[in-house]
Amino acid sequence: MSKATELARHLETLHINNMYKNDFYWTWDKTDEEIDAIFTVADALRDLREHNISTKIFDSGLGISIFRDNSTRTRFSFASACNLLGLKTQDLDEKKSQIAHGETVRETANMVSFMADVIGIRDDMFIGEGHKYQKTFMDAVSEGYRDGILEQKPTLVNLQCDVDHPTQCMADLLHVIHQFGGVENLKGKKVAMTWAYSPSYGKPLSVPQGVIGLFTRFGMDVVLAHPDGYDVMPEVEDIARKNAQATGGSFTKVNTMEEAFNGADIVYPKSWAPFAAMEERTKLYSAGDQAGIDVLEKKLLAQNAEHKDWTCSEEMMKRTKDGKALYLHCLPADISGLSCKEGEVDDSVFDRYLVPLYKQASFKPYIIAAMIMMSKVKDPASALLAMERNGLLRKAF
Amino acid sequence: MSKATELARHLETLHINNMYKNDFYWTWDKTDEEIDAIFTVADALRDLREHNISTKIFDSGLGISIFRDNSTRTRFSFASACNLLGLKTQDLDEKKSQIAHGETVRETANMVSFMADVIGIRDDMFIGEGHKYQKTFMDAVSEGYRDGILEQKPTLVNLQCDVDHPTQCMADLLHVIHQFGGVENLKGKKVAMTWAYSPSYGKPLSVPQGVIGLFTRFGMDVVLAHPDGYDVMPEVEDIARKNAQATGGSFTKVNTMEEAFNGADIVYPKSWAPFAAMEERTKLYSAGDQAGIDVLEKKLLAQNAEHKDWTCSEEMMKRTKDGKALYLHCLPADISGLSCKEGEVDDSVFDRYLVPLYKQASFKPYIIAAMIMMSKVKDPASALLAMERNGLLRKAF
Amino acid sequence: MSKATELARHLETLHINNMYKNDFYWTWDKTDEEIDAIFTVADALRDLREHNISTKIFDSGLGISIFRDNSTRTRFSFASACNLLGLKTQDLDEKKSQIAHGETVRETANMVSFMADVIGIRDDMFIGEGHKYQKTFMDAVSEGYRDGILEQKPTLVNLQCDVDHPTQCMADLLHVIHQFGGVENLKGKKVAMTWAYSPSYGKPLSVPQGVIGLFTRFGMDVVLAHPDGYDVMPEVEDIARKNAQATGGSFTKVNTMEEAFNGADIVYPKSWAPFAAMEERTKLYSAGDQAGIDVLEKKLLAQNAEHKDWTCSEEMMKRTKDGKALYLHCLPADISGLSCKEGEVDDSVFDRYLVPLYKQASFKPYIIAAMIMMSKVKDPASALLAMERNGLLRKAF
Repeated sequence: MSKATELARHLETLHINNMYKNDFYWTWDKTDEEIDAIFTVADALRDLREHNISTKIFDSGLGISIFRDNSTRTRFSFASACNLLGLKTQDLDEKKSQIAHGETVRETANMVSFMADVIGIRDDMFIGEGHKYQKTFMDAVSEGYRDGILEQKPTLVNLQCDVDHPTQCMADLLHVIHQFGGVENLKGKKVAMTWAYSPSYGKPLSVPQGVIGLFTRFGMDVVLAHPDGYDVMPEVEDIARKNAQATGGSFTKVNTMEEAFNGADIVYPKSWAPFAAMEERTKLYSAGDQAGIDVLEKKLLAQNAEHKDWTCSEEMMKRTKDGKALYLHCLPADISGLSCKEGEVDDSVFDRYLVPLYKQASFKPYIIAAMIMMSKVKDPASALLAMERNGLLRKAF
Repeated sequence: MSKATELARHLETLHINNMYKNDFYWTWDKTDEEIDAIFTVADALRDLREHNISTKIFDSGLGISIFRDNSTRTRFSFASACNLLGLKTQDLDEKKSQIAHGETVRETANMVSFMADVIGIRDDMFIGEGHKYQKTFMDAVSEGYRDGILEQKPTLVNLQCDVDHPTQCMADLLHVIHQFGGVENLKGKKVAMTWAYSPSYGKPLSVPQGVIGLFTRFGMDVVLAHPDGYDVMPEVEDIARKNAQATGGSFTKVNTMEEAFNGADIVYPKSWAPFAAMEERTKLYSAGDQAGIDVLEKKLLAQNAEHKDWTCSEEMMKRTKDGKALYLHCLPADISGLSCKEGEVDDSVFDRYLVPLYKQASFKPYIIAAMIMMSKVKDPASALLAMERNGLLRKAF
Repeated sequence: MSKATELARHLETLHINNMYKNDFYWTWDKTDEEIDAIFTVADALRDLREHNISTKIFDSGLGISIFRDNSTRTRFSFASACNLLGLKTQDLDEKKSQIAHGETVRETANMVSFMADVIGIRDDMFIGEGHKYQKTFMDAVSEGYRDGILEQKPTLVNLQCDVDHPTQCMADLLHVIHQFGGVENLKGKKVAMTWAYSPSYGKPLSVPQGVIGLFTRFGMDVVLAHPDGYDVMPEVEDIARKNAQATGGSFTKVNTMEEAFNGADIVYPKSWAPFAAMEERTKLYSAGDQAGIDVLEKKLLAQNAEHKDWTCSEEMMKRTKDGKALYLHCLPADISGLSCKEGEVDDSVFDRYLVPLYKQASFKPYIIAAMIMMSKVKDPASALLAMERNGLLRKAF
């Protein structure tokens, strides 16, 4: 039995009807079987592609992308995923649109969706805004579908909001699963999700939040560490706590990087902005107070600079399990001595983990494709089996 | 008999040979049967897509778009139409090109067209320029085809020029046809194409011109209303007059919004700039006189502001047939109290017509696709029948 | 036997195994049979397309483009070539990416290549930089493929570097072959590759270098002419000299345009910047010395202006073989009296050669497609024969 067939057979055992025609906002909206389904489909699509088998579901159709922040890897991952399934991407560049005229999100959402099968949105800049924007957008297209404006209901892939970054964190976890030889080997593993110093300012909280909200579902011991004042959203911490309780793992918070790294199997040292400061920034932004934002930025950079010792140095890595924890990062990292003077990680550490780091990133296109497939195909197991049976070649010659 | 088959059968009865390999500049270049054909094909393509049947004509090929003004809905409509037929869109972004080097339109036109099946151009900013640019561009590719430079002759879809906005106005009219239950029900209906106040400046005249040039062909009583000084092109008024005479309808001009709205079945209140001022702006622009343009802008905004009573208020709507005329707008509208303080339409009116307004917009991708299909396929009726017979699925699973 | 079949039969006789999975940097990396293969496949793809036969190799997949300089014709040529073969283009716009964060070329290269079949890079601005960037990029993806990060090894098409412009020069030469009725008729023909005056500054050297590096392989008498100080890279002159020796042609340098034009069969008058000055500019740029760059620019423009007599005037053309040499240009040209006051060529000369000039440009999409096909398809002759035999239509109706 081929790997793809094996995965399709596993998919048949899962309860996943609820994913069809549904959006993907946050991993904690989804059941364990639904999360399993995404991983399974991602692996199956990758296996088919690696065997040069076409995985096109659509002969035409659009994947709309909206990036309200710069993006390379997520942009290319979304484009790759859409292309893999037969959709053409069409980017809504708000600078080239008439959106400045004052039109509503409701209007824009409908206007770009007449032939849209899927919508990918990245909006991570302002606390309390990103998810709200995605929700408003998708409510509008759902109403549009209900009212007969849209021929089909496009579904959402959250490409990063202020709360979660599900395509990133699920790619991270699928990488971990492959590195540890299966999801069954994750139980009891220690994960250090820690803040790290960066000379830049205002990085989103969605990665640490997404990680503690997802990794706690697999019986792992997840430790969150950050300097005083760099808290993440309390709602997400609550989710992490509940997840840990339900799966026999744990979720703990510590005050030093050292404590988090001690004996860790997996480390994810990454900078982010303090939640409270991000809330303040959102208020200043709404008020159009650019001077206030500049003052805040300076204050935050100074605050960051007090914690330069929060860095993934060689010494810090020695504290981990056999000194060989799996190092994760969503990239790009602030690498001390390479991309900045002092940053999140030592050049030598980063360099040693280059291959696994890039492999980690390589799962994102397949995770996105799996999310799209689960929301657009009623019987994805049959579809995967049919793709393999039909054996249409991706590259014909 | 399916709806698509029925439409294809109707298409077989029309004299449409002249559309093959031809461009679409203005609706009044086309015969009544040709206009009928566009509506028929648009409805058929929509029906096929709604039944998940692939409508791809091309297995590869390019649709080139040139937007010399910002655009969301037209950009997405063109991309949707091309995708529906199997073409990839390639946008000519003049800022990223070498066009600034001083190359001629003739050269650019040929350079981007080696594999272009269709060209979509939006150039609506300057009176006397938009159409001229489109014509120069298409003359160049026609010569290129004649001289053996281009393997195929790309055809034009006018995505808005200074004279007409055919994809918009035909989408508007197809919406009206559906709302009124068939083209045969339009005779004698009163249409109010009226100017409306907007706090912004310099909106194109192509929509009112396109509307009076097209709607007068269906035996309707079309009334054009605007304040003194906001005339549209006299040549287009002549066309409207001749159309009305030929079809037993009427074309009249009145000086108040009230008169136009009285008893109207359909209202289209929309701001536009005065024709004479737009001519002046074109001259100032050619002379590179930015200071002159700024002065003109201020003058025009002040002039606009004298006519704030030209607004589609609840009171104004009460004057229409049973107070329930069909409200049309090409979007985005300037909505009083929502996108601006005082604008073209009351928030409550706009909101009540939201669903029909968005439906109106939903016809544009299909109108564009129909224009492309009519110019690229010699026997479009057979093609539609073959699509249905073959029954290839757009979404395979 | 059809033309495409004939070409495929010829392809079968060539030793071209080395092209499979390989990159295309410079024409002089390739054997004569490999160069022949590119021309053969380009002609065959063109013939198939002209007979409405689909030449898609891929059912999905990405062609990544990176333009580090403005581009119209190369951008559209790459998009056309990818589309012809079934690839979707995805442009890496460095301004919209996170590359500014300081990430390495190695990282970017891998991040955009997870599903990339081909990479097209234009980087021609700085001497000593363009080729280096392409090499660093491709080394990174080769390592990525070796390390299991990338599922496939994307291959490079050099869309212009500081050394060569192979897609341009091969399109130029294929045009010449067609104009002269076959490659066998090129022997002994005189080619004048000459500098010409332009009011603009800093044009790349890759075209003259590419021309002398390629045209000398066909037994032609290639003459390079430029004012004092406008030398091209000495390494490329060496290649030209060796080529000429090997094929019984010649490579000579002269100091006047007149000498170069005397009796020439083909003339390619074109502006470029002095090599030494470009080296200086690269240093100033690396040092961030904008003031220095401005001073250099002024100096170079003044230096250019001393050579306004280096222009392809009617008088100059009279010196060529029967006054009717084939005039070549990569476009856009600086046309005296049209795009500038005084430039590279007289308006009347340019105008007389308009049709052949545009035909010259029309070969580029097919050259690029041939380069992609040779690097991605193991047995391209069989593939061409299969395309013709299968006879899938590009335009179905």
